[in-house]
Amino acid sequence: MTKIISVNAGSSSLKFQLFEMPQEEVLTSGVFERIGLEEGIFTIKVNGEKKVVKEPIPDHTKAVEMLLNALVEYRIVEHLDEIKGAGHRAVHGGEIFTESVLVDDEVVDKFTSLNDLAPLHNPAGLIGYRAFKEALPNCVHTFVFDTAFHSTMTPDTYLYALPYEYYEKYQIRRYGFHGTSHKYVSQRCAELMGRKVEDMKIITCHLGNGASITAVDGGRSINTSMGFTPMAGVMMGTRCGDIDPAIVTFLQKKEGLSADAVEDILNKHSGMLGVSGVSSDGRDVEDAAKEGNERAILTESMYANRVASYIGSYYVQLGGLDAIVFTGGIGENDGNMRKRIIDRVKVIGAEIDDANNKGVRGIEKCLSSADSKVAVWLIPTNEELMIARDAYRFVK
Amino acid sequence: MTKIISVNAGSSSLKFQLFEMPQEEVLTSGVFERIGLEEGIFTIKVNGEKKVVKEPIPDHTKAVEMLLNALVEYRIVEHLDEIKGAGHRAVHGGEIFTESVLVDDEVVDKFTSLNDLAPLHNPAGLIGYRAFKEALPNCVHTFVFDTAFHSTMTPDTYLYALPYEYYEKYQIRRYGFHGTSHKYVSQRCAELMGRKVEDMKIITCHLGNGASITAVDGGRSINTSMGFTPMAGVMMGTRCGDIDPAIVTFLQKKEGLSADAVEDILNKHSGMLGVSGVSSDGRDVEDAAKEGNERAILTESMYANRVASYIGSYYVQLGGLDAIVFTGGIGENDGNMRKRIIDRVKVIGAEIDDANNKGVRGIEKCLSSADSKVAVWLIPTNEELMIARDAYRFVK
Repeated sequence: MTKIISVNAGSSSLKFQLFEMPQEEVLTSGVFERIGLEEGIFTIKVNGEKKVVKEPIPDHTKAVEMLLNALVEYRIVEHLDEIKGAGHRAVHGGEIFTESVLVDDEVVDKFTSLNDLAPLHNPAGLIGYRAFKEALPNCVHTFVFDTAFHSTMTPDTYLYALPYEYYEKYQIRRYGFHGTSHKYVSQRCAELMGRKVEDMKIITCHLGNGASITAVDGGRSINTSMGFTPMAGVMMGTRCGDIDPAIVTFLQKKEGLSADAVEDILNKHSGMLGVSGVSSDGRDVEDAAKEGNERAILTESMYANRVASYIGSYYVQLGGLDAIVFTGGIGENDGNMRKRIIDRVKVIGAEIDDANNKGVRGIEKCLSSADSKVAVWLIPTNEELMIARDAYRFVK
Repeated sequence: MTKIISVNAGSSSLKFQLFEMPQEEVLTSGVFERIGLEEGIFTIKVNGEKKVVKEPIPDHTKAVEMLLNALVEYRIVEHLDEIKGAGHRAVHGGEIFTESVLVDDEVVDKFTSLNDLAPLHNPAGLIGYRAFKEALPNCVHTFVFDTAFHSTMTPDTYLYALPYEYYEKYQIRRYGFHGTSHKYVSQRCAELMGRKVEDMKIITCHLGNGASITAVDGGRSINTSMGFTPMAGVMMGTRCGDIDPAIVTFLQKKEGLSADAVEDILNKHSGMLGVSGVSSDGRDVEDAAKEGNERAILTESMYANRVASYIGSYYVQLGGLDAIVFTGGIGENDGNMRKRIIDRVKVIGAEIDDANNKGVRGIEKCLSSADSKVAVWLIPTNEELMIARDAYRFVK
């Protein structure tokens, strides 16, 4: 029996999913929240039932200890050494890591050198790794990077029109994120259509709280809407996405804001929340729009416009299109938004069948009409599985 | 006889063109440079011949005096009162001016209130107006705005995904620029194709030192690549165009730069100049690329990619396309760049005929092949004529 644990650590959280491989069966999943705060929350699924423990969880090491005890206690594993591999979500691989890697000291050093590029995410990933490494020293540890799938972009796509020295000095370029998700849904789309991903042109729309669109040509990312950071691209729950860069300094000067303060506004107070004034959650905005809230209606239209705009741009960059895939919280659950988006890209031959789309949530489904030249799919993402698959490759 | 003068004032320059209307005959044109500096330069065309005067030109009032004297001296006009109208290029009309206006004190006040939005350009426009108003008090003075043509954009296009209060407080939104040029070439394109602009979908590419792309639907701008300021959109000679907004604050923090200093880098040291390290001038970059300079080759490819990307985006926003128009210094003169761009948008049915395009400069010409579904045109811009036409309307 080969069990692989997929790990996604945040600075005060830790999500996990345990797989039996190679059959890809999910044995359990869960999350630690509020690590380091007064009261922590540990949630784990046992035989389909959620167990919740509320108690202080001082650090990630303690969380991992609680998790491993629970796995034995609930008889999800007999012995901990059945867990042969751990796949850790590592957000930023910079230009160093273009694919998943076995973690050793050198990898840790290199990964740490990228902290500047992802000051919140990379250190959190490392904390998660260290906690598991301590508890499961004999297990094979793998880093799976959010940026890796996009490493196939060419320089004329990933470079910005800035002084070239900033690329050399600080590695300022487009990296893209959500790579594991875009890779998963593009591969799954090909499978579901009974085709080879190598022969397909696909646009994947990961629309969640964060959101990014990727142009996938023959299984390779050729462009993606997020950039140097996850702030760029389409508008998101609280992030502004693309704006005139001159607005950043205009706001600083007008409002007397520091660089950090304006960054905070663009990351946490913009997007759907900023425009609607209602919420960063697409469901709340949708509800408000239905009740006639004008700024909520505006927000929905803006959101659809911006996604459609990227689809148009990537359609020409791909030089054709076989499928559009929706995934992520909004992509998987908001049929109205999917319809709004596809209605705006009619000219490229994409058409949604309302009967296939309306109210459909969280399942794999073809949404397009029989006449649509471009297939439109809903495919729930599964980053955990992708991480487990990569970890399993190294175990083998 | 009705003569109209078209005026484009910069902070240290003043361009003019004198038309006989309604026949739209150019009687003379010229420019004052280095106004206020030690030695000024006044160039005026007389019977097709350039006359150049080098002497101190302390201010715009003096420039206008020199111009009017020259018009009489060279017998371009008999009496100055033949000049019935002056059309002044006014860059930023904000949300106040959505079309050309007769200038009066109230207009001047409102225009001045927009200085924050165009701190370099609007005050210069006013200086030019005041100098002419003093010299030609009985002539009809008109402001023609760079932003006006884009005032037909809808809120879901012109708003940014920022806290809504910044739109209310500072009118931060997309305005777009080069409007007079986009309007002219889109109208002229329809004329040249023997069609009504009201029935056409056109993408106009104004590619000069500054550059912007506009989606024109039925003669109305529905979207344009420049934004709140002329920094946004495609990469330009020295401007960065679209970048991840987080780069602005990243650079400030890393390099210890003030808001003004980073703005200066993004406006004046980026774009073609920044990437190539060669020059901000497309001709120099093209030459360097031909000699095998790798960063120059990269620059050309980036430039074409970014323009093509907007064409794709606007193609879906327009829901179809009849014509693509090239104008501006690069658009009018660089056949290789036009070819590079159109080659990247083949999928929408646009195709250049090499024989029609290669080496063609500065003339009105259809560049596309007979089979091309989308017509591709080269149309030299003529903002001066558009300004004179608007001024003439008010004179009548």
